[in-house]
Amino acid sequence: MPETTKMEKIVALSKRRGFIFQSSEIYGGLNGFWDYGPLGSQLKKNIRDHWWRAMTQLRADIVGMDGAIIMNPAVWRASGHVDTFSDPMCSCKHCKKLLRADQVWTLLAEQPWAQAIAGLFDPATRVVHTAELLKWANGKGKHQAPGLALVRNPAVVLSCIAEREASGVPLKDAREFYQYLAAEQYNQTGPITPCPYCGGELTAPRNFNLMLKTYIGPVQDESAVAYLRPETAQAMFVQFKNVLDTSRQKLPFGIAQVGKSFRNEINPRNFTFRSREFDQMEVEFFVPPDDGFKWTDRWLADRLAWYEAVGLPRHKIHVLDVPAADRAFYSKKTYDLEYEFPFGVQELEGIAYRTDYDLGKHQEHSGKPLEYFDEASKRKFIPHVVEPSAGLDRTLLAVLCEAFDEEQVADGDIRTVLRFKPCVAPIKAGVFPLLKNKPELVAKAREVEALLRPLMAVQYDDGGAIGRRYRRQDEIGTPFCVTVDFETLEGVKEGVDTGKQDTVTLRHRDSMQQERVTISALPAKLLAAIG
Amino acid sequence: MPETTKMEKIVALSKRRGFIFQSSEIYGGLNGFWDYGPLGSQLKKNIRDHWWRAMTQLRADIVGMDGAIIMNPAVWRASGHVDTFSDPMCSCKHCKKLLRADQVWTLLAEQPWAQAIAGLFDPATRVVHTAELLKWANGKGKHQAPGLALVRNPAVVLSCIAEREASGVPLKDAREFYQYLAAEQYNQTGPITPCPYCGGELTAPRNFNLMLKTYIGPVQDESAVAYLRPETAQAMFVQFKNVLDTSRQKLPFGIAQVGKSFRNEINPRNFTFRSREFDQMEVEFFVPPDDGFKWTDRWLADRLAWYEAVGLPRHKIHVLDVPAADRAFYSKKTYDLEYEFPFGVQELEGIAYRTDYDLGKHQEHSGKPLEYFDEASKRKFIPHVVEPSAGLDRTLLAVLCEAFDEEQVADGDIRTVLRFKPCVAPIKAGVFPLLKNKPELVAKAREVEALLRPLMAVQYDDGGAIGRRYRRQDEIGTPFCVTVDFETLEGVKEGVDTGKQDTVTLRHRDSMQQERVTISALPAKLLAAIG
Repeated sequence: MPETTKMEKIVALSKRRGFIFQSSEIYGGLNGFWDYGPLGSQLKKNIRDHWWRAMTQLRADIVGMDGAIIMNPAVWRASGHVDTFSDPMCSCKHCKKLLRADQVWTLLAEQPWAQAIAGLFDPATRVVHTAELLKWANGKGKHQAPGLALVRNPAVVLSCIAEREASGVPLKDAREFYQYLAAEQYNQTGPITPCPYCGGELTAPRNFNLMLKTYIGPVQDESAVAYLRPETAQAMFVQFKNVLDTSRQKLPFGIAQVGKSFRNEINPRNFTFRSREFDQMEVEFFVPPDDGFKWTDRWLADRLAWYEAVGLPRHKIHVLDVPAADRAFYSKKTYDLEYEFPFGVQELEGIAYRTDYDLGKHQEHSGKPLEYFDEASKRKFIPHVVEPSAGLDRTLLAVLCEAFDEEQVADGDIRTVLRFKPCVAPIKAGVFPLLKNKPELVAKAREVEALLRPLMAVQYDDGGAIGRRYRRQDEIGTPFCVTVDFETLEGVKEGVDTGKQDTVTLRHRDSMQQERVTISALPAKLLAAIG
Repeated sequence: MPETTKMEKIVALSKRRGFIFQSSEIYGGLNGFWDYGPLGSQLKKNIRDHWWRAMTQLRADIVGMDGAIIMNPAVWRASGHVDTFSDPMCSCKHCKKLLRADQVWTLLAEQPWAQAIAGLFDPATRVVHTAELLKWANGKGKHQAPGLALVRNPAVVLSCIAEREASGVPLKDAREFYQYLAAEQYNQTGPITPCPYCGGELTAPRNFNLMLKTYIGPVQDESAVAYLRPETAQAMFVQFKNVLDTSRQKLPFGIAQVGKSFRNEINPRNFTFRSREFDQMEVEFFVPPDDGFKWTDRWLADRLAWYEAVGLPRHKIHVLDVPAADRAFYSKKTYDLEYEFPFGVQELEGIAYRTDYDLGKHQEHSGKPLEYFDEASKRKFIPHVVEPSAGLDRTLLAVLCEAFDEEQVADGDIRTVLRFKPCVAPIKAGVFPLLKNKPELVAKAREVEALLRPLMAVQYDDGGAIGRRYRRQDEIGTPFCVTVDFETLEGVKEGVDTGKQDTVTLRHRDSMQQERVTISALPAKLLAAIG
């Protein structure tokens, strides 16, 4: 199915079945903020717990912590966030819209007229119909086609194309042509006209700090300013010494933390992907100075395995070895892990070898020694750090997108199914009496519910035909359904042991296969499958 | 032991063993903010998960949600928080300190000179040594004893005492005398001089809103103001309709949420008890209008049982049936659940029957219908709500205080032990080789570690004498220690089955009893005990 349609369907399902709601929806929402409903909150918890267990319980070399969102503002001065954690922003002098300067051209390329322009490039022959381009451009007013400034000069267009062809990576389609052209222009001249929305002139970009500011204490002046953390990482650097002194760890070891961070994004977009309030899952892994590269590669392997464990297949994760020019200046190596979202390939996690930059900065600014004495080598040094930093909301969104499927079933209609791995599925088992007006069926189904409920999240449902109940569970990704039917009671009715007494129908979500299982065997069987 | 000393010991242990650190400690901290270290974060997670499981997984009539901390500010206008969520504050004209007006007298009573004044009242004979009081007062300058204004008039002192005696609840000790005297004065005249710190004159109280303010979007003006939620509750009211429509629930049913809230407390105090950033665990339980009182009582019983399950015995929880004058005006019934902290009896949770106030206000302000249609009675109404609202950090602090014990052991020294219930203990089992320089012992101990680690949080320790290792685990509340010793290997050495092969010493924290258990039986035995 087309990727935009798929995303629309996922957003609609998220709302309809209680995964994700717009925050404060009855008051018109709040741009960049989302609430997780009954199923979404459990899905989120399952992913978070899976990560926490993998990072802390299953490893002897990582300990957890849970730091405050609001820290002493000196932390953010030392880390450089107060001075440099900003995006370039410009606004339209005509329509007053605010835009990220580095997103202007992407936004332009998404406009319908941009696609019309792109259609005048023939990717098969690599020919640009410059005459038609000009004719088309001349027929439009500024406000109908804000990209006009770009295409009025065929020489610019042709030289851009030639340059790209010469680089050995020819443009593969018309849309890419337009985006390339746009990006070239942007690199050469900075953010110039036009505004993607109205064609108006944009202001020069200025830096806009992304940290949300607040005031602590009764007086709202500069001395009371504090920030909502834009990343969880800094608490782990700032508490490095306390954790080292109390946890009996030796290098290499890590600290893990999961929690809320806030960024005042100028243009929140792509559903929950880029929001202003989000949960991060971060590890700071401290190593001797010589071991940074080695551990960065180990973490890459570890994290890829983790994503696979929660349902993102290896081939859908793109690993980008970030070139030096695009890395933070203190990072000697950075991998970006990107997932093929329906709206494009986008970052899930960065694994950065950050050297001793962070601890060094905090030692300098706090005046407290943050060095480590290595017993074996008798050396004292500031540990280097490898940081696997993942987004929980982004992982959830990827898991949701990956799980979403529409399947043509035998009778010709469409089955919507979320193919979650059982370990992350919000509900593990649906429990149904075949009919709700047969007290024996209901009583037995309630028994099964009571048996399973302490062990896993279950949903009891007696509403409507059994097929509809299966479909409802499919749509929320429940891997197993257990139906109490007349066979379950069979032994009882006749006074003869038919061998079916206290068996139930166990129905599997993905295959829709059904099997007969004794009630007493059910807990162990389901728990083993959930993992 | 004296309660202040006990609290000091708990604070010191929390820092020393990595339960709780001051936030941003290397930068001098930040008043009212705390970080949970390796053990504290796991203890906190265990309590939170215990609550979440009890509220959602184990009950069919409650679903969870996880809403954003920052909501549309219209939510806080509708709820009344913008107008009325404030504390009366005053400041000292002399030393400039800021104080909660309603806490001035409590602070006064904590000053050393206040205790000196109190010493002039004899609780046995109910005699106030007014002459001595005056003599004492006249010998002091204002700044040495800011409470002087109170006691310079013996007639006021005597009339206060007489009134209290007449009420049938005589004062029980000297400290209470002073506090009572102070409170009487406060009630009669409002916050008057003196400042508890310097004796200076205080300003008249003014209301100070406790919500932390921030700005969303690029422009910091009034239209961009947003608040950090001061309670998680409102998200559950605002999303009531979405949850109802998507979760197939019928009244009575509840929504559960756990997460961060923020209050700009003027005087954070008592360790983590009153902080500016804290986690709440709240349920909004929606019921038909006639069932509010019934469900309030049911919730009281449920919540008392829960506190017992995490380690707070029933007799240490005080239930206060809050009198009408002290309840919110819309509440028809409120229970406060208070715990005997070392620093006094203080609130853990409030269970409030809030009628239809909250949903009614949001219906009025949002213009969206928040009514419920009851199929059985064919009635349409705004549901009433019962709210059990608990503090996670406070529960953790209570669990920590309750668990803390110092025990005189046989050899005359003191054993510090945290007697956590196994279900909340951050580490469930310590695993030790008897000696770290015997490869067979180490290999076998590593096997035991590998066996247990997927099932529970374990700590491997080979440092120092076995007795010291037990003590270290006692101090962090680990309920079980498993030691691999020479008996474990016995069968191997001689080639004869001694019956001891692959058995370990299992040592119990509270009784310090040891027993011999086969390694293969260990997982089931420990899991059953952890619950």
